[in-house]
Amino acid sequence: MFFEGSEKKAEVVVNSQNLSLLNDISNTFWQELVECCNAQILSSIENEHCKAFLLSESSLFVWHDRFLILTCGVTQLVKSVEYFIKNIQAKDIAHVTYQRKNEYFSNAQLSSFGDDIHLLSQYLTGKAYRFGEMYSHHNYVFHQDNGFQAQPDDITYELLAYQISEEASKLLTTHGLSAEKIREFFCIDDLLPDFIIDDFVFDPFGYSLNAIKGEDYFTIHVTPQAGSSYVSFESSLDLITMAAKIIAILKPASFDLLGFNDTEFADKVNVAIDKPYISNSLVSKKLDNGYFVCFANFITPETYYSSPFELDLTGESHAL
Amino acid sequence: MFFEGSEKKAEVVVNSQNLSLLNDISNTFWQELVECCNAQILSSIENEHCKAFLLSESSLFVWHDRFLILTCGVTQLVKSVEYFIKNIQAKDIAHVTYQRKNEYFSNAQLSSFGDDIHLLSQYLTGKAYRFGEMYSHHNYVFHQDNGFQAQPDDITYELLAYQISEEASKLLTTHGLSAEKIREFFCIDDLLPDFIIDDFVFDPFGYSLNAIKGEDYFTIHVTPQAGSSYVSFESSLDLITMAAKIIAILKPASFDLLGFNDTEFADKVNVAIDKPYISNSLVSKKLDNGYFVCFANFITPETYYSSPFELDLTGESHAL
Repeated sequence: MFFEGSEKKAEVVVNSQNLSLLNDISNTFWQELVECCNAQILSSIENEHCKAFLLSESSLFVWHDRFLILTCGVTQLVKSVEYFIKNIQAKDIAHVTYQRKNEYFSNAQLSSFGDDIHLLSQYLTGKAYRFGEMYSHHNYVFHQDNGFQAQPDDITYELLAYQISEEASKLLTTHGLSAEKIREFFCIDDLLPDFIIDDFVFDPFGYSLNAIKGEDYFTIHVTPQAGSSYVSFESSLDLITMAAKIIAILKPASFDLLGFNDTEFADKVNVAIDKPYISNSLVSKKLDNGYFVCFANFITPETYYSSPFELDLTGESHAL
Repeated sequence: MFFEGSEKKAEVVVNSQNLSLLNDISNTFWQELVECCNAQILSSIENEHCKAFLLSESSLFVWHDRFLILTCGVTQLVKSVEYFIKNIQAKDIAHVTYQRKNEYFSNAQLSSFGDDIHLLSQYLTGKAYRFGEMYSHHNYVFHQDNGFQAQPDDITYELLAYQISEEASKLLTTHGLSAEKIREFFCIDDLLPDFIIDDFVFDPFGYSLNAIKGEDYFTIHVTPQAGSSYVSFESSLDLITMAAKIIAILKPASFDLLGFNDTEFADKVNVAIDKPYISNSLVSKKLDNGYFVCFANFITPETYYSSPFELDLTGESHAL
């Protein structure tokens, strides 16, 4: 069974002197926004700075001045962004960014990145980039081009791990596995001390976690099945510094690190990422919206020939 | 402008004591077969062993006992295979294999590999494998499982080069470039002495070449545009031994080598492929139809950060 773990991601900043997304927007609005991309709210946690919704496909975080939404599978996230743009006064929207990882079952997607940008372009003008090679892991980034400048301390990260070790995949696909066991596996207590945690184990497998503390957020989404396993992390915490721990747990065949506004990204990556991983793609740019975006893809060289993956022709292969 | 260079490929072996594809099948039949996947025959060459058709999307080679067809773009090659199966008596069809490289604009495809196998399964039973990681370059291979055994000397190769050097891309996208200049660029006289050559320069760019000599064949297909360049080679000649020359000409960021029935594949690759290339995936298996299939993907490690690729939002981005 294959599932498209790769996320689409949108962040919208509002003029918080006019509009507080935490105080002025109802949960019903967020529910409707999430439904626009065919996802559902499963649960939520909150503190005075942030409300975090766990979704049937990934996560939504809402702060006073912005929201961040990640969705995977065949959700059409751009429809949720359109819903926001249509229902909030244009003068209150300060900035829109929209991002999409290359997919591996893109024939199953309802729209392509190009389609999505075409839709957004009806409402706003912007620029778009591909970080990473066409024929390798890459991220498409679109940002509104309206003079908005990101705060230098608005620093966030992504760590996207592909094809985790057989042991990790086996453990995470164990029938009836509890959320507690998965938190132990990821050493959540160690990684996220004093965070409020909300998590969910999907049936027959799959796992999502949201965590918040003050303005900080951390989210994990796990697609564990062997042959197409994928685990994503996104956070305001420094995932480069955490990478060694995470990589040691998952032992992925390859992974991406993305940094937004970490000016020391390259130096930190050099220190943090060691053999057997080798950098395959390194891309960076200071965008016109003030975000300094860095993308690094790492792979493990192979020296021995392994067997191919045999496809099951009895049922699910049409998902390929 | 993006074009899906990645090929689908089918090979069908017939019982040549009953049926000679060269003598008993008309060009009209091949034309109809090719039209089933929305391609057209542009031209052809032939000798006593082989007839080679240059197609609007890649190539068709016909021998007495088999045909091989490669098509790229959004062609639905499986429909051509279905046409053959429907129009030739089942007792005359000895073996069908069907192969598909992972695509990069698969949302534009009319069917997925899974869909294709589902269609073929109405007519024959088989097995399917993925050579290469899900999250990296990979090839899907389906073969009929009917006791057929390939001849050990039925040895063929593929070399698939991704993201060729800026210089190569620039030269190959030169307006009004002649076929002669492209043959010079690829050192065709040197690579293919005494071959009959048929080639075509597409408008505004793109190039295809078929070459035959005795039972040997060689074909090149070039998608040269910067940002998504791709050049494929397929031949009965030893492309591993030729790889160093070809790689030196194109300097691709990454490439795949595939071997069918070359038992010395691994050793030869070790000798032929040198720095800066590093093996990312190595996969091999002796299939139940007797073919020993080897797949090797090579990448170039990066040490410096480059700029992202800026997308043109005025027109063609919806192709992404």
